[in-house]
Formats: sequence, structure tokens, C-alpha cells
Amino acid sequence: MKVSRDHPRYRSLVMREAMSEMVKNGIVAPTGLIAHGRGEAFDYLLGEETSDNARRAERAAVALLLEARNPVISVNGNTAALAGKEIIALSKLIKAKVEVNLFHRSPERIEKVVAFMESLGAKGVLGRHADTTIPGIASDRALCSKEGIYSADVVLIPLEDGDRAEALAKFGKKVIAIDLNPLSRTTRAAQISIVDELTRAISNMIAMWPELSREEAIRRKVLSDFDNQRNLKSSLELICDRLTELAEEGKP
Amino acid sequence: MKVSRDHPRYRSLVMREAMSEMVKNGIVAPTGLIAHGRGEAFDYLLGEETSDNARRAERAAVALLLEARNPVISVNGNTAALAGKEIIALSKLIKAKVEVNLFHRSPERIEKVVAFMESLGAKGVLGRHADTTIPGIASDRALCSKEGIYSADVVLIPLEDGDRAEALAKFGKKVIAIDLNPLSRTTRAAQISIVDELTRAISNMIAMWPELSREEAIRRKVLSDFDNQRNLKSSLELICDRLTELAEEGKP
Repeated sequence: MKVSRDHPRYRSLVMREAMSEMVKNGIVAPTGLIAHGRGEAFDYLLGEETSDNARRAERAAVALLLEARNPVISVNGNTAALAGKEIIALSKLIKAKVEVNLFHRSPERIEKVVAFMESLGAKGVLGRHADTTIPGIASDRALCSKEGIYSADVVLIPLEDGDRAEALAKFGKKVIAIDLNPLSRTTRAAQISIVDELTRAISNMIAMWPELSREEAIRRKVLSDFDNQRNLKSSLELICDRLTELAEEGKP
Repeated sequence: MKVSRDHPRYRSLVMREAMSEMVKNGIVAPTGLIAHGRGEAFDYLLGEETSDNARRAERAAVALLLEARNPVISVNGNTAALAGKEIIALSKLIKAKVEVNLFHRSPERIEKVVAFMESLGAKGVLGRHADTTIPGIASDRALCSKEGIYSADVVLIPLEDGDRAEALAKFGKKVIAIDLNPLSRTTRAAQISIVDELTRAISNMIAMWPELSREEAIRRKVLSDFDNQRNLKSSLELICDRLTELAEEGKP
């Protein structure tokens, strides 16, 4: 379907079409489209822009990733489809490993998503050989790589499911989530919860890298100033304000 | 995927899997899954139950449909997949025609969705032969049947897109929408806006039929008491209350 550039929500509609296409080549699972739709609804409520709260969380995330000993970015089908290139660029800057982990896991899909990331220029992508498990998860979603997520100190999980986010936090990982639902279990389980649309979040984090990579003192200050709970509460208030505002606009 | 019955959001997860299956047989379009996800997010914010506001709108909708001269229910892929049986049952009670109308229209998909409704027991489903158009829509989404939507006085549109909802209202139809987004253009274009999950809404409407079909005086009173704007505003307040409540629960 052709989307007019004049449409007020052009970008959202283009991404919607692109995600549907990604189901055909097996990168995105059909239920991944439903998850994308949930995200869309929350992004709509957030005004489809990065809030000050999100920006604070993104700064803290970059600082924490730069302080990490072994940072890993976990990539699933939706993440690869939406922001594969941006993820690769960020991983290079912060020297993080990239590991493919899927909610709907099969050897074929793992191979497809790893190969897709490689086709975008990623090197050394982990995930093909999951040789251990995250404790506390019963299903095959526990599978991960010893070299990657298992031994990581900081894990960035964009668009992750609640079970795994909670298990990673319990396992002692410092978890950074990117999730548009400010109330999801993933958001709640994380130490740093970025409530922002994925491509905006990663692009912002790349832009924040030059300043934060320069000085450890700045990173320490960003981290000590950051209060995840206060920040999340503020995101919720933003949604309520936006609802009220939209309700006023919508009056006949 | 097997979903545990103990899961707090069991029903939502089962529907999610069922909708994904429906993409394989062509009833649901891939972007229909994204739309379903958007609905899921709003339903989650509404507590996944029928609010008093929704119940009021449902009562008014049944009253209006029973007063109609030529009521038509417009059915798309998501509607057929989620609530095909319930739609058929309601259409029989209120003596409404059923017309298949698709956002992603092709002769093949029209045939599939009509045949699917027939397989569920529907008779005389319109949509195979769209012989006219709704004024004010440029694309082939304007197509409809003279005998159905074109000549209807009241049209029930579950899960409809904003363009068509607005065009139908401008064309002079009394529009009843079922849409979980209390701010969508569809919701705003409708005379009666039901902000509720589709299967709950239709099941409630069926349950309301005995009382409302009995007496015209009750129908008239229900309709004159109903204020769609006030009702919608109240739905928005409900979402804000729920966000605040969930935020409190989520505190560590």
C-alpha cells in the first residue's frame, strides 16, 4: 500500500508496512506484528516523540554501557527489523556484543535473524550456538550464549518479554530495557527503563556517545543523578496529560 | 505456542495466537495483526473489562439498531476472525444485513472472508459484488454494495479505519463504532462509540437484546439519555485512573 507523505503519521505507517513485509521473509514472527501494534498504541499516547524522561534514561543507558565490562545487546526479530543498522552502529561505539535471542525460537529463525544482522554489516553476532541457559526460565527462551548474555554484566534488551527481563535481573545482570509500555514487566524489571520508540532511542543514544565517552566523571554524574522510578512515574503522567490534551482537541 | 490457563492474561494470549493463525489462511491481513496489537494495548489500559461507559454505549447501539429501517453490520478480516459467530448471532436478532468490507481489498480476500462467514453459518452475506461507492473516498475502500451499506440508515462498524468512518458519517449514515481507542478518528466520527473489546461488546449487545426488543419506550429512553461525548470523556478518565492505579501497584 502506498502511504502519502502528507499523512500526519507517515513514519508510523511506513514502519507498519515494512514490518508486515518482514513477516514474509521470516525475520518477524506473526505475533511480533501484534507486539509492534501494542508499541504503536503507546507511542501514539506519548505523542510519537522522545520525552525528556526518555532522554534522561537514554543518557543513563549510554553511561552504564560505557562503564560496563562486558556489555551485550540482545536482538530479537522485531529489533532487527526495526533498527538493525542502528543497533550495529551503537554496538561498535560502546564495544558491545550482539546476541540474537528469539521469543519464537527455532534454529531456522535464529539463522535468519543472525544472517540478516550480518547482511547489515554486523560481525561476530552471537546466538547460533546457544550453549547455556539463563536460570529461572523453563522454556527454550532460557537458551543463551556463554560468551554473550550469560557472562555479561550489562544487558540491553530492546522489546524483550517480561519473563526473560525478570530472569536476567534476578540473575544479577544490570538490565537496560527499551519498551514503550511504561507499565510492562520488562520496564519494571529493568534498572534503566527507556520508554521510547526503538529507532528513536538508539539514534539518540548514538548521538549521546561522543560526550559521554569522553569523560568518566560525566558518566558517573549521569548515573548518580538518574532515578528510574521517578522517571517512569513521570512518563505515566505524560500519557495522562496527552490523553487529556487529545480529548480537548477532539471536542466537536 | 502453548499458553498456560493460569496466565493472568490468558484470553488475550489465546486470541493473539488465534489471530496469527488467521493470517495463514488469509482471513486476517498482516497489518491487521498490528491493528490488533494496538487494540490490545488500549484494552490493557481499560483493565480488559467492559466499563460502565461501554455498557451504556452498547445499550444505545442495540436500541438504535432495533429502531433502524435498514441496519447493516460491516465486517472486515479482524472482525470475522475475532467475532464472526457473535456478529452472525447479533445480525439475526436485530435483522441486520452483513456486508464484508476490507481495508486491504482484493477479490480473493473478499471471497475468503465472505466464505469464512458463510462457513460459520451466515446467510446472504453481501460484499462479493460491490456495485457502488461511498462518496468522499478516493481509494477502492470506497466500494460497497447498493443493497447494503450504501442504502443503510444505521451502520455498525467494528474495527473500522478513520477515513471510511468519517465518509460514512458525512454520507448521512448513523454510525456505531466499536473501537478500543477512545481518541481514534473512527471513535470520533461515530454517533455511538463503543470503547470495548469486540467479542465482549457483541456478546453484551446480544444479552441486551431481549429487554430492548420488547418495548419501544425503553429504546427511546436509552437513546435520549445517551450522550456520546460525555461517555467518551469518561472512558479517557478511566484510562488515566487505571494508569495511576497500575503505577501505584508497580512500585517496588
